[in-house]
Amino acid sequence: MMKQGAKKEQIDLVIRGVKEAGLDPRPLHGTERTVIAVIGDERKLEKDKFKALTGVEKVMEVLKPYKLASKEGKHKSKVRVGDIVIGGERVIVIGGPCSVESEEQIIAIAKEVKKAGAHLLRGGAFKPRTGPYDFQGLGEAGLKMLAKARAATGLGIVTEVLDPRNVELVAKYADVLQIGTRNMQNYALLKEAGKQRKPVLLKRGMWATYKEFLLAAEYIMSQGNREVILCERGIRTFETHTRNTLDITAVPVLHELTHLPVVVDPSHATGIRSLVAPCARAAIAAGADGLTIETHTHPEKSVSDASQTISTEEFIQLMKELKAIAKAVGREL
Amino acid sequence: MMKQGAKKEQIDLVIRGVKEAGLDPRPLHGTERTVIAVIGDERKLEKDKFKALTGVEKVMEVLKPYKLASKEGKHKSKVRVGDIVIGGERVIVIGGPCSVESEEQIIAIAKEVKKAGAHLLRGGAFKPRTGPYDFQGLGEAGLKMLAKARAATGLGIVTEVLDPRNVELVAKYADVLQIGTRNMQNYALLKEAGKQRKPVLLKRGMWATYKEFLLAAEYIMSQGNREVILCERGIRTFETHTRNTLDITAVPVLHELTHLPVVVDPSHATGIRSLVAPCARAAIAAGADGLTIETHTHPEKSVSDASQTISTEEFIQLMKELKAIAKAVGREL
Amino acid sequence: MMKQGAKKEQIDLVIRGVKEAGLDPRPLHGTERTVIAVIGDERKLEKDKFKALTGVEKVMEVLKPYKLASKEGKHKSKVRVGDIVIGGERVIVIGGPCSVESEEQIIAIAKEVKKAGAHLLRGGAFKPRTGPYDFQGLGEAGLKMLAKARAATGLGIVTEVLDPRNVELVAKYADVLQIGTRNMQNYALLKEAGKQRKPVLLKRGMWATYKEFLLAAEYIMSQGNREVILCERGIRTFETHTRNTLDITAVPVLHELTHLPVVVDPSHATGIRSLVAPCARAAIAAGADGLTIETHTHPEKSVSDASQTISTEEFIQLMKELKAIAKAVGREL
Amino acid sequence: MMKQGAKKEQIDLVIRGVKEAGLDPRPLHGTERTVIAVIGDERKLEKDKFKALTGVEKVMEVLKPYKLASKEGKHKSKVRVGDIVIGGERVIVIGGPCSVESEEQIIAIAKEVKKAGAHLLRGGAFKPRTGPYDFQGLGEAGLKMLAKARAATGLGIVTEVLDPRNVELVAKYADVLQIGTRNMQNYALLKEAGKQRKPVLLKRGMWATYKEFLLAAEYIMSQGNREVILCERGIRTFETHTRNTLDITAVPVLHELTHLPVVVDPSHATGIRSLVAPCARAAIAAGADGLTIETHTHPEKSVSDASQTISTEEFIQLMKELKAIAKAVGREL
Repeated sequence: MMKQGAKKEQIDLVIRGVKEAGLDPRPLHGTERTVIAVIGDERKLEKDKFKALTGVEKVMEVLKPYKLASKEGKHKSKVRVGDIVIGGERVIVIGGPCSVESEEQIIAIAKEVKKAGAHLLRGGAFKPRTGPYDFQGLGEAGLKMLAKARAATGLGIVTEVLDPRNVELVAKYADVLQIGTRNMQNYALLKEAGKQRKPVLLKRGMWATYKEFLLAAEYIMSQGNREVILCERGIRTFETHTRNTLDITAVPVLHELTHLPVVVDPSHATGIRSLVAPCARAAIAAGADGLTIETHTHPEKSVSDASQTISTEEFIQLMKELKAIAKAVGREL
Repeated sequence: MMKQGAKKEQIDLVIRGVKEAGLDPRPLHGTERTVIAVIGDERKLEKDKFKALTGVEKVMEVLKPYKLASKEGKHKSKVRVGDIVIGGERVIVIGGPCSVESEEQIIAIAKEVKKAGAHLLRGGAFKPRTGPYDFQGLGEAGLKMLAKARAATGLGIVTEVLDPRNVELVAKYADVLQIGTRNMQNYALLKEAGKQRKPVLLKRGMWATYKEFLLAAEYIMSQGNREVILCERGIRTFETHTRNTLDITAVPVLHELTHLPVVVDPSHATGIRSLVAPCARAAIAAGADGLTIETHTHPEKSVSDASQTISTEEFIQLMKELKAIAKAVGREL
Repeated sequence: MMKQGAKKEQIDLVIRGVKEAGLDPRPLHGTERTVIAVIGDERKLEKDKFKALTGVEKVMEVLKPYKLASKEGKHKSKVRVGDIVIGGERVIVIGGPCSVESEEQIIAIAKEVKKAGAHLLRGGAFKPRTGPYDFQGLGEAGLKMLAKARAATGLGIVTEVLDPRNVELVAKYADVLQIGTRNMQNYALLKEAGKQRKPVLLKRGMWATYKEFLLAAEYIMSQGNREVILCERGIRTFETHTRNTLDITAVPVLHELTHLPVVVDPSHATGIRSLVAPCARAAIAAGADGLTIETHTHPEKSVSDASQTISTEEFIQLMKELKAIAKAVGREL
Repeated sequence: MMKQGAKKEQIDLVIRGVKEAGLDPRPLHGTERTVIAVIGDERKLEKDKFKALTGVEKVMEVLKPYKLASKEGKHKSKVRVGDIVIGGERVIVIGGPCSVESEEQIIAIAKEVKKAGAHLLRGGAFKPRTGPYDFQGLGEAGLKMLAKARAATGLGIVTEVLDPRNVELVAKYADVLQIGTRNMQNYALLKEAGKQRKPVLLKRGMWATYKEFLLAAEYIMSQGNREVILCERGIRTFETHTRNTLDITAVPVLHELTHLPVVVDPSHATGIRSLVAPCARAAIAAGADGLTIETHTHPEKSVSDASQTISTEEFIQLMKELKAIAKAVGREL
């Protein structure tokens, strides 16, 4: 769209630029301005260059900048982790502590969540902490404990990777690689995860629009790994009573924009234990394909995120509520 | 809390100020700073004055600044509109068009929503529009049409009031006075609504924290009108794909902070027709006491908010889904 | 813009709708979608109705929805208050307390700000307070005190009006009517202010986009009052260290979008006394036409906003700094 | 702070926990609640664990969680890059293109910015791009071109590092390591940068509070590298007319909270060429220690960020304006 009063040579420059990119320009001379419509795959255009031309007011996009992640014309994807299918009829639940603390701890919790009906086990060995003096996780020792918990329960392991140098190491133990909110635009890490043949649970950056979220998924997919699970985990808003604001609408919006499965993390979104259950129920009612929930046999002793971790007793109760909601929306859990 | 290195006379000034307000100051001399704890009803203190004193770092609140709206020690309130109880076991649904357009339109829609099981009828006669050249509503003529729709269906009327000079007029026709998001801190209007003996549906300002929302309710309640229904309708965030971001967590948070009933408006929160149903289901799953939903027999002909208005056919289908969710959380609809 | 795979009859419906509005539709059939360009004054189209049609993906605006406030083709406006010109070469400063407290207080402060070189006097007689139990202002008695301060110093008066029923009363005493941030979309108040023949200082809603801000100005202007001064006063963001976040970029952006003068309120934007001076300097460096600053002879005794009010000594010092900045950007103060 | 009606054993549990951490608990029994004040270095407490205890309402911090970055008791730090001092009397300007494109390009621009009076040269060899199909930078070849530009002009080099595996490589060529907004909480990268003996220009995450920003600096400093320069570059808000919202108040706030120097990036904050100059002037007026500005001999040919890049002619003009502002605030440039 040209500015009001743009000169003929400025308009011609845009038209020439569109032609040079192999596309078909169609100038529309309105009563107040000229708009140049473009026929063809506009993704070939470097839009930013056009914005920089004198006389150009703005460049409006028609096509989406992501392709592999885009819904257009595709069926909903299913991501498989062993027997577990994410994105199918069944709603899946990933349960476990924030951090792996010890072999006993993780095995005890794994058994409890298994008994309650969870499908996968979560637990951090590498922890992203806001302050450098906070507990940073047990590292590879923690990964080994997770592997033992898997052996003891049969539950697949979801665990976070923070550093591109650790992707192979984590992939050796994990069934699903988790990329956290702070790293949603850590492109070195995304590319490395894209080279693995393990599903990736990608958390939305707390500042990220849907478009940016899907472009981050596109980074992983463009490296060859199509097994991406999107996770809404709260965005940053002016409301500080809760840790973040759960964007529940992300669930149906993402289902419209992408074929990838969508899960929700009510623990990090709210940061408050008593809010986890209502938000988990809401997520399934909104159509989420799964949930990831922090739970601990002794939440008050959890070394991190204690205030948002529910007890395994509460987890068992919540699973019952979730089954009822899943049924009400025509799914199972 | 004093600044590091605050002087004795600065500390003494704070202590004296607390005493003058009839409260009991308890200075705590820490390793790095002094903090002056205050015993008594801190709401008597003008906190802002203390913040302005030299040597004061900040003032931290212990008590909540609202009293009548506060949960502490109170049962959940029930607001009655004729036979309809908001805040009880039953989840209630307010359905109807954005604007009253004609007698035929509002009566036809009223009959449809009644048939689908809605409990109250919504419809705007005075419309707050972002631009001065947009349709501003039919005014009193619209109120009269709403009254006819009530006569035809028995449904109570929920309609917005924009101007303190119109509160009495609107109250003459309406069963519930609605105060919109833009007017959440229109104190002249809040006070006028507080003098009526009609329930008030107060929508959250799209910029308002929970605390500010409850203080707006407190304005109405402090004038004598205790019949306030809170309505979460989306907040403004960086995400612009949807009109606003539905803060689903507001539902359980408000249930913790206040005894007032809480309803959700998925139509304005999302601004997109296809997102209304999933967000409505999520709201009930999260514990909302009700919903307000825009519906029209011919959405594409609606004079306002057409893109977020569902058809009455979709409304009927949605009511079925909502009944299932309500049952799953142990309620009826 | 139509959805991918939109049917011919859906496209035809849009084309027909555009024609019915007296405009000229130009369908562009792209490789993936059809876009229907519209030639003519698109403001005649009810865009929302088109969004609601089946097969329509979105509606993109080319023209701005405000006309009177728009820059296009216009010189910068000057608003006159007695001898003072806002929007000219000279940067103007509005100084004074948050609230009028007593005749002595407002006259003493008026004399100080006059001596320091301020051009107008501010002070609230009707106060919008977040809580109903806070001091609400002296009302008409306060307006009379302001009039006395004007008589004593010759400074024109800027004071807030909250209620459409008080607009005439406030206009009787004030030289400039102030509409506060909370009331930026209080349309009853905007319209009433638009009927006066007094300049209006319109503060940006803390949630409002530039477009919404200019549409609020358009409301006033569409009633016949073209004397509008825009005031950036901080927007609500996730950062809560300061009361709001001063959007300094609003100054040059608004100068590009509108011919109306733009002033900045660093006191409310920051809420912290020590930040007022640097932000005031920044505002003038960014091209603001003026400032409104809270100052008091005894800030710590101020009945409201004490923590952001600077002393008159600090005000005198700040005026010197501001003169230097004004000179550096080729203006006077 | 305990909840209203917290039981004695719940209070005792908190008191015991504080004692176990080697601190001194002081219970204050108020009229409505009990608050337990803590004397000693509260940073030893794992606050999250206390939040998780039954009966605890919330935990309020008195001390700041960062130490090395904290202002308390320290003079303002100076960071030296060759002869250039950042954080001293002189305001410094970092100029150059978004990306290194070719040897000729970077040398030509370097000469222009040097002539205009800039102190350091910026230019990206590794580019963080939102989409995987966008230009990703020239990598080491680009670093070599930057080194040639330094040889040709004597300007020190500021360039971004994205991947912890590249930190040593980039440090071999760069004089200042830049860490971008998306990586502000990329802890693997922060730690690696902390092991270098090169200054680090740390950009604020577009979602990050001041506290989180300073904790990110603390990560680098805790590894031994104390040479950190903070860079405000705009935060994400609801306003989308500009790319981000420049938080000008960050400048004086950070000067109050930390001893580290603070620079501003008006190019990325606004994303619009015409807004760079007014925001740059504002930054210096607000007290910034420097600026980083995107400039190019042919902005419209820039391979990235073209729309926010000013021409070298505009850069020369801007430098003159900035000198005047610097003088007006008692500094040089």
